[in-house]
Amino acid sequence: MLLAGTVVADPTTVYEDGAVVVADDRIAAVGERSEVADTYPDHPVREFDLLAPGLVGGHVHSVQSLGRGIADDTALLEWLFDHVLPMEASLDEREMRIAAELGYLELLESGTTTAIDHLSVDHADAAFEAAIDLGIRGRMGKVLMDKRAPEGLEEDTDAALEETERLLQTYHGAADERIRYAVTPRFAVSCTEACLRGARDIADRYEGVRIHTHASENTDEIETVREDTGMRNIAWLDEVGLTGEDVVLAHCVHTTEREREILATTGTHVTYCPSSNMKLASGIAPIVDYLDRGITVALGNDGPPCNNTLDQFTEMRQASLLQKVERLDPEVTPARAVFEMATLGGARAAGFEEVGALREGWRADVIALDTDLTRATPLPDPLSHLVFSAHGDDVTFTMVDGTVVYDEAFGGLQTGDGDRIRRRAREVAAELHE
Amino acid sequence: MLLAGTVVADPTTVYEDGAVVVADDRIAAVGERSEVADTYPDHPVREFDLLAPGLVGGHVHSVQSLGRGIADDTALLEWLFDHVLPMEASLDEREMRIAAELGYLELLESGTTTAIDHLSVDHADAAFEAAIDLGIRGRMGKVLMDKRAPEGLEEDTDAALEETERLLQTYHGAADERIRYAVTPRFAVSCTEACLRGARDIADRYEGVRIHTHASENTDEIETVREDTGMRNIAWLDEVGLTGEDVVLAHCVHTTEREREILATTGTHVTYCPSSNMKLASGIAPIVDYLDRGITVALGNDGPPCNNTLDQFTEMRQASLLQKVERLDPEVTPARAVFEMATLGGARAAGFEEVGALREGWRADVIALDTDLTRATPLPDPLSHLVFSAHGDDVTFTMVDGTVVYDEAFGGLQTGDGDRIRRRAREVAAELHE
Repeated sequence: MLLAGTVVADPTTVYEDGAVVVADDRIAAVGERSEVADTYPDHPVREFDLLAPGLVGGHVHSVQSLGRGIADDTALLEWLFDHVLPMEASLDEREMRIAAELGYLELLESGTTTAIDHLSVDHADAAFEAAIDLGIRGRMGKVLMDKRAPEGLEEDTDAALEETERLLQTYHGAADERIRYAVTPRFAVSCTEACLRGARDIADRYEGVRIHTHASENTDEIETVREDTGMRNIAWLDEVGLTGEDVVLAHCVHTTEREREILATTGTHVTYCPSSNMKLASGIAPIVDYLDRGITVALGNDGPPCNNTLDQFTEMRQASLLQKVERLDPEVTPARAVFEMATLGGARAAGFEEVGALREGWRADVIALDTDLTRATPLPDPLSHLVFSAHGDDVTFTMVDGTVVYDEAFGGLQTGDGDRIRRRAREVAAELHE
Repeated sequence: MLLAGTVVADPTTVYEDGAVVVADDRIAAVGERSEVADTYPDHPVREFDLLAPGLVGGHVHSVQSLGRGIADDTALLEWLFDHVLPMEASLDEREMRIAAELGYLELLESGTTTAIDHLSVDHADAAFEAAIDLGIRGRMGKVLMDKRAPEGLEEDTDAALEETERLLQTYHGAADERIRYAVTPRFAVSCTEACLRGARDIADRYEGVRIHTHASENTDEIETVREDTGMRNIAWLDEVGLTGEDVVLAHCVHTTEREREILATTGTHVTYCPSSNMKLASGIAPIVDYLDRGITVALGNDGPPCNNTLDQFTEMRQASLLQKVERLDPEVTPARAVFEMATLGGARAAGFEEVGALREGWRADVIALDTDLTRATPLPDPLSHLVFSAHGDDVTFTMVDGTVVYDEAFGGLQTGDGDRIRRRAREVAAELHE
């Protein structure tokens, strides 16, 4: 298939009249349309306004989707323990499947093709199956909580780690490597030392597995960890093995100089979640400093109860604007830096090779956007448009690994029934509400 | 016409199964559908998902629309003097009309029915005519700049004030009071004392005229005013008469305790422009403090070169999130407070009576939104949805003063040719770019 349009191939490469050729699950060619079309004269052509690499959601809670709008205007720990975790605990396997489908549907419709997804304690199979079926690229894992967990979510440490290994053996590498496992402790507040060290042990015993957890989002969280361990949160995570090139830490809002050095020297990846950090009043992460230190920064929406959407375009805009006002410097985090977080940075953190840009031989994760819109008029710079003006609503076409998963011209979701997913989600959410 | 759906009538009144009856330019009834429908059995019925009052853009530069995306990542004074003002100065009357039409089209499509609009120095007639024709409710005026203006925009003081009076006499009260005049000095940096006092004099001599200017957006601006006058900016504006219940000051990011007292005791209105203040790295306005003092706060997008959209839903979300993280308090600026800024607060600042809520006898400024969307699933609280999840893209129907100006079911803009406006805007922008 030859996809034609203005092509933003990566943060520094734009072909105004470009084309992307997809063969099987790979990009066979990308460049100026005149050159590409000559080399691939027999491919069927689809015309689009603007083509870009699929975005990477660097920290998502797909299975919290049924809690959109349930707990606005509350702080992290109350929000988590009084609202979000009880909701997660109440979901049975069927409901977890519906929640995950709703999350993946929103991501795929709005141009996110890869998600680092923090599931729940129970029924993780349902989310893995949903990800396999709907066609998203996922780095995902069951949550571990073996202390300070609300009723219904606290686990025995060994049982939790055994369940992690069962899931890992079942799903890691599934769907032609589209699905990969992340060992996923909730956060240091809710995990014993044995649990955290057990997570590291599992990650070391399997090729290509990652560790994904929350870290230093909130000052109360940091204080709780200090009371438990006598250490700052990231120093503690480092102590028990949860730093390194295979680790993704969401948030990292409040970090000391020494903790930042740990992140940089260990090659630990950080996911910036600006809207979530703003809405929960957690604080502003020192992202410019992290970038200056060479830390890989991904970008995440977090979950619908704290965002309240999974639109990564909203998050790109927010990522830039929040750093500019925090630093009182309008030149920091320009469009290209933020677009890199949402594509190549996210893919690096997620541990997917040849993902995050439109390059010959790379995985065919491609999105197309409509720009025949007032909000896109005029459009002097496609990167500026993608970061500061575009909405996920503009996405008309989403391809993951060479498969068209969403196509507005052919009824929307191609890998499931979008109307049915929304209808069932409304029904379940109404029951939960009662 | 009877408009049926979930009705958000004002920040504290929601009818889940509601209706709004419009007769001529007024709301004849609003309430539960069962009650309203019995009283108005003969009105034609339109079914919608969600109905709300039209939003009020508290500070907009419609005629900067052609500069969307031209000057990202630059600070206010450089952005203004090196990029935006030269663009404004280069527009002829026809181009000014196209720029204004593009701005009003974006506003109406995305649910903003009233704008406090800061035009340019020249060709203000073109924008007034566009506002009259496209059907937006406008509080608008020609810009005054009689010092420190770039080539082509600096005016003789008397000539500028005379031109203001001519425009005021021509357009103030036009279109059945839908268009009202605001005397519009650019800002204290670019206006002599005679100009500012002249603005006050005009506002005093005509019934129902307002004054609208920028104030204390940026520390360099404040320093320049101090060098010129020896005073803080808002103290200076107060000295020359530019405070009071007929004055709207955009931004007010950097204010002293004494200046805040001036704003509160004089009844001066403030427009909060969070995205613009973030993108230009101006700072974070102390909005919670202003609200605590009883100051009326409106909400504004500012212009496409600094935002880069005129989507007021984006701005509502930003308004709340930015205050939460600034105060490190997730309870401040909840959805209802922000929705009030974008409706009743804006209408109060703009000086339009019976505008900003759906109430019996009030002006029929009504919008409808589609909620059959993944991003709106589930939807436990319509106000939370409007502020935290909705996009201007969801607006399907916009009515101003009882006239349908935008209707997605009937081809979009009803008061002009949307495709033609976008096409001509692209052509002019391409010429300007060269």
